[in-house]
Amino acid sequence: MKKGFLISFEGGEGCGKSTQLKKFAIFLEEEGFDFLITREPGGTEVGEKIRNILLHDKAALSSKTEFLLFSASRCKLIEEVIIPALNEGKIVVLDRYFDSSYTYQGYAGNLNLQDLQTITNFAIGDDAQPDLTVLLDLSYEEGFQRKSADERLKNLDRIEQKGKEYHDKVRAGYLQLAKDNPRRIFVVDATKTQDEIFEIVKFEFKKRYQNCQNGTK
Amino acid sequence: MKKGFLISFEGGEGCGKSTQLKKFAIFLEEEGFDFLITREPGGTEVGEKIRNILLHDKAALSSKTEFLLFSASRCKLIEEVIIPALNEGKIVVLDRYFDSSYTYQGYAGNLNLQDLQTITNFAIGDDAQPDLTVLLDLSYEEGFQRKSADERLKNLDRIEQKGKEYHDKVRAGYLQLAKDNPRRIFVVDATKTQDEIFEIVKFEFKKRYQNCQNGTK
Repeated sequence: MKKGFLISFEGGEGCGKSTQLKKFAIFLEEEGFDFLITREPGGTEVGEKIRNILLHDKAALSSKTEFLLFSASRCKLIEEVIIPALNEGKIVVLDRYFDSSYTYQGYAGNLNLQDLQTITNFAIGDDAQPDLTVLLDLSYEEGFQRKSADERLKNLDRIEQKGKEYHDKVRAGYLQLAKDNPRRIFVVDATKTQDEIFEIVKFEFKKRYQNCQNGTK
Repeated sequence: MKKGFLISFEGGEGCGKSTQLKKFAIFLEEEGFDFLITREPGGTEVGEKIRNILLHDKAALSSKTEFLLFSASRCKLIEEVIIPALNEGKIVVLDRYFDSSYTYQGYAGNLNLQDLQTITNFAIGDDAQPDLTVLLDLSYEEGFQRKSADERLKNLDRIEQKGKEYHDKVRAGYLQLAKDNPRRIFVVDATKTQDEIFEIVKFEFKKRYQNCQNGTK
């Protein structure tokens, strides 16, 4: 029986997700929560092997094969790590989860969203649905301005290079998911300062966690 | 545009599939057909890596993770090997294909058949549907009697050990698939001699291949 709490963080490039994850981990630590932070793909022995394929053979993989491998890694992580942790009452924090697949490969990619959802539901089952998903919402222009000139030159990775049109699709995808899942996805205006954002996240988490413990989520 | 012909061979333990595959390959060779025989999982560089996970970590994999990895390998094989070969007009022969997943993991396993079908359709697309599937049908008792006493003792692998009830489910699953796909799946009574079976298979293949070339399949 699930007793813990599953929270995922989502958002496009430059939304400040890493900073918020760090702050959230420090908060959980200080408050004495039993928690773990994990990231896909990987997190298990099999997952690391899949991660190696995804990284090493990236160029040779179609979006479909990539998504199926991602789903296999996700399935293993859930069975081996997430479900046991939730059963022990832990708080599980995920740096991106299936909403990223829906957004990047569905809304902004060329894969059918409904297929992605069916496959994801098959892979994750009923017990690994997030109790709360924090979506840090930021426009492309605002996200890009956040980065230093150095970062803008150096860190232009594959996804970042795709430019404004792609990022607009990602953002619109995330917002559509939030509209379709208003109880689960909590949208935060990421133009606020990191401290302001964190206060909002912390407040929402405490409320949801309390409701969850009281069985009223 | 697809110009080739895709044929898959299916059947439970001891049905004589390997023998028929060998005979069929010799026939294609002798008749001067351009063909390839392939087997899942594997068949591509990425597929071999997935195959290694499936073999090496078998004990650690749930049916779900196993099926997703299988689907990823299948997707890659289709994109990299099967579709190009069909586009070149080749005959592609598959030693087991998705019907095996439906039968062993759906009908005889604990996975939802409709989920398996949705994921398979996502993985294989429209262009890698078999033009003909040969199902070698045999009861458990008949299949078991076929093996020599030595084989019966030595080759009791994981699946074979599951016994009569499991094999009956496999057989019933295959026959249900044949009932649902009467145009694609051709059922052969595998109690006949190997030579008789092969004559039946060859006759059916020639007819279907001819229809396919004439665009009347």
